Amino acid sequence: MNTVELIKKKRDGKDFTNDEISFLINHFTKGKILDYQFSALLMAILINGMNPSETAALTYSMLNSGKIINLSSLKGYKVDKHSTGGVGDKTSLIIAPIVASAGVYVPMISGRGLGHTGGTLDKLESIPGFRTDLSLSRSLKVLKKCGVVLIGQTKEIAPADKMIYALRDVTATVESIPLITASIMSKKLAEGVDGLVLDIKTGSGAFMKSQQDSINLANSLIKTAKSFNKEVIAFITDMNQPLGNYVGNWLEVYESIQVLQGKVNNDLSTLSINLAGAMIYLGKKAKSLQEGERIAKQKIENGEAFKKFLEIVELQGGNVNFIINPEKYRKPKFVQKIRSKKAGFLKEINTYQIGMASLELGAGRRTKDDVIDHKAGIIFYIKIGDYLKTGDVICELHSDSKSKIKSAEQIILESIKFSNAEPTFPKLIKKVIR
Amino acid sequence: MNTVELIKKKRDGKDFTNDEISFLINHFTKGKILDYQFSALLMAILINGMNPSETAALTYSMLNSGKIINLSSLKGYKVDKHSTGGVGDKTSLIIAPIVASAGVYVPMISGRGLGHTGGTLDKLESIPGFRTDLSLSRSLKVLKKCGVVLIGQTKEIAPADKMIYALRDVTATVESIPLITASIMSKKLAEGVDGLVLDIKTGSGAFMKSQQDSINLANSLIKTAKSFNKEVIAFITDMNQPLGNYVGNWLEVYESIQVLQGKVNNDLSTLSINLAGAMIYLGKKAKSLQEGERIAKQKIENGEAFKKFLEIVELQGGNVNFIINPEKYRKPKFVQKIRSKKAGFLKEINTYQIGMASLELGAGRRTKDDVIDHKAGIIFYIKIGDYLKTGDVICELHSDSKSKIKSAEQIILESIKFSNAEPTFPKLIKKVIR
Repeated sequence: MNTVELIKKKRDGKDFTNDEISFLINHFTKGKILDYQFSALLMAILINGMNPSETAALTYSMLNSGKIINLSSLKGYKVDKHSTGGVGDKTSLIIAPIVASAGVYVPMISGRGLGHTGGTLDKLESIPGFRTDLSLSRSLKVLKKCGVVLIGQTKEIAPADKMIYALRDVTATVESIPLITASIMSKKLAEGVDGLVLDIKTGSGAFMKSQQDSINLANSLIKTAKSFNKEVIAFITDMNQPLGNYVGNWLEVYESIQVLQGKVNNDLSTLSINLAGAMIYLGKKAKSLQEGERIAKQKIENGEAFKKFLEIVELQGGNVNFIINPEKYRKPKFVQKIRSKKAGFLKEINTYQIGMASLELGAGRRTKDDVIDHKAGIIFYIKIGDYLKTGDVICELHSDSKSKIKSAEQIILESIKFSNAEPTFPKLIKKVIR
Repeated sequence: MNTVELIKKKRDGKDFTNDEISFLINHFTKGKILDYQFSALLMAILINGMNPSETAALTYSMLNSGKIINLSSLKGYKVDKHSTGGVGDKTSLIIAPIVASAGVYVPMISGRGLGHTGGTLDKLESIPGFRTDLSLSRSLKVLKKCGVVLIGQTKEIAPADKMIYALRDVTATVESIPLITASIMSKKLAEGVDGLVLDIKTGSGAFMKSQQDSINLANSLIKTAKSFNKEVIAFITDMNQPLGNYVGNWLEVYESIQVLQGKVNNDLSTLSINLAGAMIYLGKKAKSLQEGERIAKQKIENGEAFKKFLEIVELQGGNVNFIINPEKYRKPKFVQKIRSKKAGFLKEINTYQIGMASLELGAGRRTKDDVIDHKAGIIFYIKIGDYLKTGDVICELHSDSKSKIKSAEQIILESIKFSNAEPTFPKLIKKVIR
């Protein structure tokens, strides 16, 4: 096979065979296909697409570029959740202990934040002492002991994905449904799970801005998962405003504790219970999604979910004192309330910009090497549809830098729009696809 | 401006501004845009295209990445010809002395052969002692003295084109009309010419296989040239069989001498006179194309064109004895006649494969570093439409290697098709566009 001829094939809109895809991935990971050839191929794939069987073959080749974790020694179903990412999206922290306390194994491999979105690993690491870089054998021990482990992607898992993603990021080839599908699925399949719940975000703070794109991605992920005999349930959920009220690493851990303790009833708790319910269902501990949700609620109410969270934190080296007494956590130098300069119903939030404001405060990364300030972030007092009088508090900004608070305030005030008429509240769960 | 955002723009089918194109070319040539980013951009351009004003801006930026030769010290018009390349296409060697002898300056910058096509520089260098690597100041002296100079592209001319072409070659991004246009025009405009005659080949031995693609390329080149206030005449000409009867470097010089001496009357001499006539017309030495052709013919008949060729060879260091007595040239070790195994009318020639057979004999390059055997090649005895009896000679193969002759014979016999009915002879000049 000839690399240039293969690039030409996709350039001209033709379909690859499984062998051709395997050749391309193997040769790229071995350095025999050069970056500048592969990026031209990625652009051709982005523009001309890939059919479901090509996407499955791509996933297969990327998956097999690395190690597939063998969890067959664990009796019982293993289920994970994947979210396409958003602002204030901290459901992993809540779901993992709920589902594990219901008797389903949760081997969860998460990522770091970049740009406007946060990452589960960064949130977990805001807990003093918490380690996400466990070895595979140590991870397996934790998983066996408490039914859940929360770690980062290791070098052994789907190395082709790491190489390809690094190239996509700098060549405008991120927004391709087959490439996104293969990237997500190759990593998730490497975890050795039986089932997967997908949370596909849509709206101003999501990577997929339109609902149709989100549905297309969900269908592509489901098709691919099915070709590997994995059960999948996909939720298309709203990202037109931050999920919950807290944005920023420790602030999100704090809000997760509140939900796990049953102290909060909001969009975050609702979505977490729905997603956890679906995982419990896929883990064969419930006969329906509804029953799964009931069990999830129960695990919060009876305190088992919170207890499980403490167990995870302990086993992964974190200091549980901060979970039991979160008010002991270090405080930022400055906390400033932002007040509305107008009156009216909150109509619209540019959620991408809210993510950027949080980044500005120190909670995120512009580049991979940026250092995060775990205590920085935003606490929102309002949701779309709320009525505000002039001077009402919109949010609270947390940062060690006065000037950063100034610029974040600016971004936030420009990101929200008011209306005189009561706006429609965006539906949280737009669609469930299976 | 942000590179990734610009790649995204073209990926999404939007048009670039002049400033954006200038940013892209300047940053790429300075190494600030990396190869793998630029190749993704090239693929997006190939698939989504560029409008005429983008193509002109691209040409402008590539032209200005290097030196533009200033020929204003020469009184009179300067005209060049560019061919998109084919098999046996040796018109440059014939045209340049004809046009110069008619009083039009010909500052001709040519290329080397690669793959199935030969290159003017390789043909010239088959003349012992001939130098094509003159400095710009020496070139100007030769041009002043005899009205013509035949050199290769120097490092100073359109360096962006060299960099971009190297990348296109290995990323399946060659076949793009805007990219081809900018590549050709940036080099030709750097020569400081007033007018340009284009020979766009179409057919089995051409880069543009379909006539419509050739016409589209011609129109793109003409539009771009006009935006630089240059006069252009484009010929769409046949490349469904080798041009003339000789293929191979010295063999093509030999056939050119025959045409310049008025000894041959075939498709090669006809096309040469047409192209030379158009150049003489653009050089304001004729009032019409027809008058230009008459002058071109006259320059052959009165011996001035051949005399001019001797003058060029002499001034560029070549040994004129081989031009005056070409039979003194070194002979290949083996010359073998290939005879037809069938009877019938010659209907079709896969001219690309004829180019590959010539390469196999030693006359061409597979990679840039291959060494050429100047005396190797093919002499054809037949043209499409000729009737052959079994045993009639198709061609003569020249090579130092018996085994290469064997494999070239194989290629040639597989490349020609016969028919019982008399086929239509392909029209030599299919269209003249201006």
